Formats: sequence, C-alpha cells, structure tokens
Amino acid sequence: MPGVPGASSIKLIVSDVDGVWTDGKIIYLGEQREVKEFNVRDGLAVKLAQKCGIAVALITSRTSPALARRARELGIVELRQGAASKLEELERVAEKLAVTFDEILYAGDDLPDLAPMLRVAIAAAPSDAAPEVLDAAAWKLESRGGQGAFRELVERLLRERGEWQRLVEEFAGGKPEAQSI
Amino acid sequence: MPGVPGASSIKLIVSDVDGVWTDGKIIYLGEQREVKEFNVRDGLAVKLAQKCGIAVALITSRTSPALARRARELGIVELRQGAASKLEELERVAEKLAVTFDEILYAGDDLPDLAPMLRVAIAAAPSDAAPEVLDAAAWKLESRGGQGAFRELVERLLRERGEWQRLVEEFAGGKPEAQSI
Amino acid sequence: MPGVPGASSIKLIVSDVDGVWTDGKIIYLGEQREVKEFNVRDGLAVKLAQKCGIAVALITSRTSPALARRARELGIVELRQGAASKLEELERVAEKLAVTFDEILYAGDDLPDLAPMLRVAIAAAPSDAAPEVLDAAAWKLESRGGQGAFRELVERLLRERGEWQRLVEEFAGGKPEAQSI
Amino acid sequence: MPGVPGASSIKLIVSDVDGVWTDGKIIYLGEQREVKEFNVRDGLAVKLAQKCGIAVALITSRTSPALARRARELGIVELRQGAASKLEELERVAEKLAVTFDEILYAGDDLPDLAPMLRVAIAAAPSDAAPEVLDAAAWKLESRGGQGAFRELVERLLRERGEWQRLVEEFAGGKPEAQSI
Repeated sequence: MPGVPGASSIKLIVSDVDGVWTDGKIIYLGEQREVKEFNVRDGLAVKLAQKCGIAVALITSRTSPALARRARELGIVELRQGAASKLEELERVAEKLAVTFDEILYAGDDLPDLAPMLRVAIAAAPSDAAPEVLDAAAWKLESRGGQGAFRELVERLLRERGEWQRLVEEFAGGKPEAQSI
Repeated sequence: MPGVPGASSIKLIVSDVDGVWTDGKIIYLGEQREVKEFNVRDGLAVKLAQKCGIAVALITSRTSPALARRARELGIVELRQGAASKLEELERVAEKLAVTFDEILYAGDDLPDLAPMLRVAIAAAPSDAAPEVLDAAAWKLESRGGQGAFRELVERLLRERGEWQRLVEEFAGGKPEAQSI
Repeated sequence: MPGVPGASSIKLIVSDVDGVWTDGKIIYLGEQREVKEFNVRDGLAVKLAQKCGIAVALITSRTSPALARRARELGIVELRQGAASKLEELERVAEKLAVTFDEILYAGDDLPDLAPMLRVAIAAAPSDAAPEVLDAAAWKLESRGGQGAFRELVERLLRERGEWQRLVEEFAGGKPEAQSI
Repeated sequence: MPGVPGASSIKLIVSDVDGVWTDGKIIYLGEQREVKEFNVRDGLAVKLAQKCGIAVALITSRTSPALARRARELGIVELRQGAASKLEELERVAEKLAVTFDEILYAGDDLPDLAPMLRVAIAAAPSDAAPEVLDAAAWKLESRGGQGAFRELVERLLRERGEWQRLVEEFAGGKPEAQSI
C-alpha cells in the first residue's frame, strides 16, 4: 500500500534532543561550559536503525558542542541546532534528504514539537512528555526521555518491519558484522 | 475584585532555585567549579509566563555563575544571589519592580522560604519540599523540584487565567510567533 | 539520666560521605578531576545542628577536593579523608573533640561503617544502605543517601530534643537570626 | 564435581561497563571531555571479590580516561576498551589469564553482550537490561545498572561460596585487615 503511513514506509527518524535523548536537564558548568547526558542504548538504537537503512536526524532549539560530538559519533545524517521553528527546520531537512512527511517518524516531548508531530507519518513521545504532546503521539512510549525512549521507538519500528529478531540473532551468534554495530 | 489575591492578580513569579528549579543537588567539580542542573521545560515555562506579561525573578542564598548564565538566557527580570534573608530580598525586589505582595506568586522548598511564602498572594511548593513548607503552600505541586515543578506552577497559573489553551493552539499551528518562544 | 545513650546526650554527629551525603556515585571527569554531588537540605541540616550546639564531623575512606570545599562551606568541625579504618579514625576524632562514644550519632551505609556503628550511642543508616548496615542501625531512615538522609536524621534528633519546632517558628517569622542559618 | 559450572568454579568476573557499572549515561562535557559515574558499593564489591581470590576484568566497546582511572584504582586485572567484538575480546582475556569459559561469570546489559553471556558459566544482567539480555541471564539481578547491580552479583557469588558472612563479621569486628579492603 504505497503512500499509506506506517512502519514500513519510514525512511527517516527525526528526534528532538532535550527531553527525548536526554531527561531534559540543562547542565551548566560555570558560565561557559555545558554538559549533556545521553543514553548508551539509544546510541545502539541509532546504529541498528542505520543498519536497516533508516537515517536518523536531530532538530533542537538549543546548541551545544557536546551534542555535536555525540551526533558525529553516531553518524547522524542531519544535526540542526538552534532551530527557531522545528516545523520549518523539518521541512528543510526533508527537502534536503528527499523524503516526504509520510516517510518520517518524529519524536518530541514538548510544545515546540507539536507542529511537526501533527504532520508526519508517525509521532512518538516519551512517557514523561507534556500531556498535549502525548495526546498528539500515535506511539506513546513506556520509557522516559533519556531513559530508553529513543531505543524503545527504534525497537518498535524494527519489530513492525520484521527486522528486529534477525538483529538479535546476529548478536547472539557473535558474528563480526553484528559486533561492528 | 481588585486586591483579592488570585491567579488573575499575579504580576510576578519569584522562585527559589535549589530544590525548585533543581533537585537540590549541590555539585562541585574540585575545589573551584560548580555545576548546576536545570530543566528544559521549566525554561519554556519562563518564556510562556513572560509572553503572558508575567515577569519571573529568582532569589537564592547561594551564588553560582551557572545560574547567572541560565537566568540571562531566560530573561529573568531580577536575579538575587547570596540572599541572607529571602523575605528582605523579596521586599527589595517588589519595591524595585513596583509590585505588591498580593501580586506575587512565590515558589520555595525549604525553611528559609517560609517567611516569604506566608506573606505573598500564592505560595507554591514542589512535592518533595520540606513538610513545613508544603503545609504553607496553597499550591502543593505534583512534580518534584528540578523535575517540572516550576513548569507545573506556570501551567496552572496560565490555565487559571485562561491563557494556556491559546498558547497550545499556537504551537500546534506552527505559527512563527509561537516558535520564537 | 547521665550516661544513658539517647538524643539528649548527643554532642557530635559523625557521618560517612559516599552513600550518606551522596547517592554513592563516584564521578570522574577524565583522568584527573572528580565531581561530587551533595544535597542542599543536608547542608541546612548541618547549620541547624550547629545552631543547637551539636558539631558535625565527616569520615571517609576516599579523598576529593570537592568534599573539602563543601566541608569548609558548612563549618564541619573535623573532616577526615582517606581513612583506612573508620573505627580508629572515629576514636581519634572523639579524643580530639573530647567526646565519648555515648555522645556520638554515627551515620553510615556500607560494611566499613559497621564497626563504628556498633559502638556509638545512636547509629543511623539511609534506606538504601547495605542490609547488614540497616540491621545495625537503630535509626533506619526513610530517605536514601544523597536524597535527604542526613537532613532526616538531624531533624529527628532535634525533634527528640524538643528544638525543631522553635527553629521552624523562627524561620516562619523571618527573624534575621533565623535567616543567617 | 570438577567442570560443572557454578559459583564455586568461578575464577574471573568479567563485566561490561556502560549499563552495568553505570546507569548507561554517556556524559559529555563539551566536545572533548567525558564524565563517568560509578558506584562506590560496586567498588567495594571488586575489593571483596579480589580478597576471595576472584579477579575482575572489564570489557567495553567505548573508551574513556575516567574508566581507566577507576579500573586502576580498583586493581582491575584486565581493562579492554574499544572492543569491537566482546566475544573475541573475552576469548583473548581468558587465554591471557589462563581461565576457561566455565570459570567465568559475565555481566552485561545489551545486545552486544549476548554472545559472551551465552557461552560462560554464569551470565548476570541488571534488572533494567534489554529484555533479550535478561532472558539470557541465569542471574537476573534486582538492582539496576549503576545502582548496585555489580555489588549484588558479587554478594550473591560470595554467599553461594560461603564466604560472605565471614567478611561481614570481619568488618563488624573492626579488624584492620577488614578495613584495608
């Protein structure tokens, strides 16, 4: 069923950072420096999605060098920091990567994420997202932001596409190609 | 009903920092430097309050450059660090901003906040505040300090003033004026 | 009843640090630097105990500049870092301060704290202490280490001595002498 | 019963780091520096295992100076960072230390740990491990990663070997040899 939004149509996952990849803490060390806390299993999830041909992009209204490092480490296809409008930024990312909104899964946790979430194929939100955002999410995750929410959505996506079990078996077998993930 | 304390009369929100904007952790890096952990959704709450014409001030008995940065980032109208007496500091802030105690909502979590809380229009406390402080709070919040307590009180204030739903709809519509918040 | 161990006899509170004043996290920034996370309400508890004439000392088997700063900030009477034997260190502290074990309240969370806990007037442990340590504690606290355990024990001590309510009333009154705590 | 896998046969504990010794947070300070949060009671557990003649090794696919410091502090026998394949790395560690897989207890939390866990004598996983990893673990721990999971498995191992109670009594007695742990 081409054109029908669903797990099999997704080509790109776009995620907010603070509150989705993190627990929403803004951590300052003195006046100048910023600390960011990510989740190691979210990182593996990025790698698993990519292995299945799904790209991962990040859009955030904030800016931090720590996030730039994490994004580079994980091979994030587009990192957009300092986004004034997440909807407009999403439109630019979609155009650049030549994907339509029907091929995008978007994860967000707060009001500025509402506009993109209401327009993509699948919207997902951590369990501790703002109530209005949870209402707008087709996928209401069981995990909190920074505590596996992104991992959970990738696992759900790959399960619905029938790709998860094969990945697990590759890990269990200890095959080198699995380990390089 | 002019002079009657209530949500519609509030012109200024004054908040303690440690235990309200944070979870109460005092974080030292070696002898010299201090880390502070804020909440991204509390930050949006400040912006939403300001958009509705309500200023936000902070009074704390401690002093840290990290807080100065966060306050500047959010457009905090008055940041008073190193306050020996929170009640006296609140009196000075009120006088400077030309607001009365009947127009102030004060949020605190521990015994030094008791004196101001007993004298303002609305006193609020996070769910993990000291018992005596919770007793003194008209608004006993469901969220813990640093985990959305400040966001919750702003949302409650704006709901009681009938301004919350409009803000949500602006976000959902993706209107630029909403995104710039 | 002189000589009977109890709240009214306590002249000194001695506490372990990691797992009592903190949640037990050992935080390293690279090879060289260490971060420590304390609790702002534990800090006020130290000040309240001191105001009631009870000194506070710390004994820890570890060493960090961050702890030295926090101890100095709070007026800790004795800070003993790098203690090989907590019992022997406690004996040295008691001798120096001229207090007997019957006048000491000791708070600990793990096996190295057992020996001092079994010998002082009152032993206290956070709710997440090792089971053997909780067994040895007369005061089994409801709070976890780093999340108010030390504050809880000071409050319990001052309540049993009949001094807590007066302190709260001073704070509520906004009297300068209360604020300077 | 030589050759039968079990607690009495274990000569080496091998553990993953992120998600077992930590809660899985990857913490960046700006572009360059990394923070790691360990658990003080896990540290004592390493010392207790060593005292009972059981070595502790760490295998991780990541690399951080903070971990190198913690491993050195605790006398970790082998620290393997940047491991592409945990199974192959485990084979190398076992060969170097002249232990067989029947003498190894392995603790892991995520899919890359599956291959070693399926091949050693005893596999353990924190309560918040990935479901597939928990399924593969003979010892499903009650503690979460970074919150005492490693301590719990060492205590269980030493209890099954009948060595735990003696250690506790040494601590209670305040014997110097106990304190030097």
